[in-house]
Amino acid sequence: MEKKVGFVGLGQMGKGMALNVLKAGFDLTVFDIREEAMNGLASQGAKRARSPANLAHQVDWIILSLPDANVVEQVVFGEDGLVQDHEGELILVDCGTTDYQETLRFSRSLQKYGIRFIDAPVTGMDARARDGTLTIMCGGKEEDVHQIRPLLEAVGNRIVYMGSVGSGQLTKLVNQLLYNANVATLAEVLPMAVKLGLDPEKIAEVINTGSGRSLASEFFLPGILENRFNRAYSLKNAYKDMISAAAISAENQIPLPMVHAATTTYQMALALGLGDEDKGAMIKVFERVLNVLFRRKPDGD
Amino acid sequence: MEKKVGFVGLGQMGKGMALNVLKAGFDLTVFDIREEAMNGLASQGAKRARSPANLAHQVDWIILSLPDANVVEQVVFGEDGLVQDHEGELILVDCGTTDYQETLRFSRSLQKYGIRFIDAPVTGMDARARDGTLTIMCGGKEEDVHQIRPLLEAVGNRIVYMGSVGSGQLTKLVNQLLYNANVATLAEVLPMAVKLGLDPEKIAEVINTGSGRSLASEFFLPGILENRFNRAYSLKNAYKDMISAAAISAENQIPLPMVHAATTTYQMALALGLGDEDKGAMIKVFERVLNVLFRRKPDGD
Repeated sequence: MEKKVGFVGLGQMGKGMALNVLKAGFDLTVFDIREEAMNGLASQGAKRARSPANLAHQVDWIILSLPDANVVEQVVFGEDGLVQDHEGELILVDCGTTDYQETLRFSRSLQKYGIRFIDAPVTGMDARARDGTLTIMCGGKEEDVHQIRPLLEAVGNRIVYMGSVGSGQLTKLVNQLLYNANVATLAEVLPMAVKLGLDPEKIAEVINTGSGRSLASEFFLPGILENRFNRAYSLKNAYKDMISAAAISAENQIPLPMVHAATTTYQMALALGLGDEDKGAMIKVFERVLNVLFRRKPDGD
Repeated sequence: MEKKVGFVGLGQMGKGMALNVLKAGFDLTVFDIREEAMNGLASQGAKRARSPANLAHQVDWIILSLPDANVVEQVVFGEDGLVQDHEGELILVDCGTTDYQETLRFSRSLQKYGIRFIDAPVTGMDARARDGTLTIMCGGKEEDVHQIRPLLEAVGNRIVYMGSVGSGQLTKLVNQLLYNANVATLAEVLPMAVKLGLDPEKIAEVINTGSGRSLASEFFLPGILENRFNRAYSLKNAYKDMISAAAISAENQIPLPMVHAATTTYQMALALGLGDEDKGAMIKVFERVLNVLFRRKPDGD
């Protein structure tokens, strides 16, 4: 019997993913709080649900693509939430980037409702969501992941099973923490170099061909030099990973000195009002303190 | 008139570099405190000097390839040092990795002796020193660097002029600080991942194909998994870069929170007696604290 699929959250990532679910031939029902987001999918053949509860009633498998743990909580456990009106077998797959410890809590609660839960955060920007070429890191029972694999293969081309529930979010978090810390180190070291007289373009070239190289340096150095801080998701959004790490560190007594130092830099950047710019904008914290510019020109402000 | 070249320090790096100077056709005189190190070069046609002072008396250009600032100070300014017996024009090129602030001090002192100074630290291991394919980052007067360029081209294939004296060391330091900090972040984040149940091999693969990727992760993750910590220069040697950064930060009031956090991790590793292992061994600090292993097997000890 063909499985019926539900999809909640048709934002930048979710929209492309839901379209690929449809293209793969699944019977798809969608829900989003914005009517217009559902229209696009409906015109391609998806059904609309009136609420998460109404959606859960109609389908076997549900994908969530939501901004954070608070929204997941509301959609799943809130008024008209998924758990309010489901019957029979249901597998819930969270493809958003959701806090690790909240994920463990959600999973425990869902067990009481007989709902099987898989955390399956993705990497890749919206272009890869459209192309169906996302990397998906899964945590949950291995047989559940095996069962929904055809659905995951509709949205991604690299499905990695990481272990028990939460392992997908934890894997993504580890990757993000390294990335975020590497950017924070650039943010302080580059202004030092300029303060002591080095040329930004030359130092950027040496780093990206030398041992200091990272995906962080390769991605952010060109943007920083060009004074462009809108090339990736915002500092405000990236900060949620630092909060997750701080909670894990505190609750599990896991020392993370580098991550904590990076968190301080994130907080300084947010306090200076840089939250809507991308992570490269952390360099402005140290540029301002040292009164130098690594960039070719100052901000307009 | 063909320039006569002197070379001091025929260690792992210096030996290969000096041989390439000889191959390029320069009249070469060498000095090393170890007689046997000079024998190898002498058998290829190099002359031997009796002391740095004796060497300085005979040549126009001198390359230093020495372990640290203390040895440079002794070779240059000590008893029988280079400055004790030189006459006429002399250009001194420091190809070692020497502390930035000491480099500025040496340069000022050398001016009094009429000696022109270039800092020109190299990147690349001993294999590239033998092949003459080092990258050389130069600081000093542009006309001096231009003049000795034929000599630099004998030992390296990428000569980058970075600016006034000290700029070469500063550039190398910036690169090393990023590299060292990126390793320090791995050292704490990987044991966290294992403590919370992730599989080391899987997480290593995700990192090296994901946004957490860096030259540090690409180089050290395979060694860490294999329990091999002798694949690069020692933690003890790497630590001198952290000392240089601490001195720059203190004297110039330059905030470096990530670098300081990384320094703490280096210090913990050194205090635990890991100084002779490579930087990847920093992971042992956090493995021991959390009582987990990221590696496939524990140390023999």
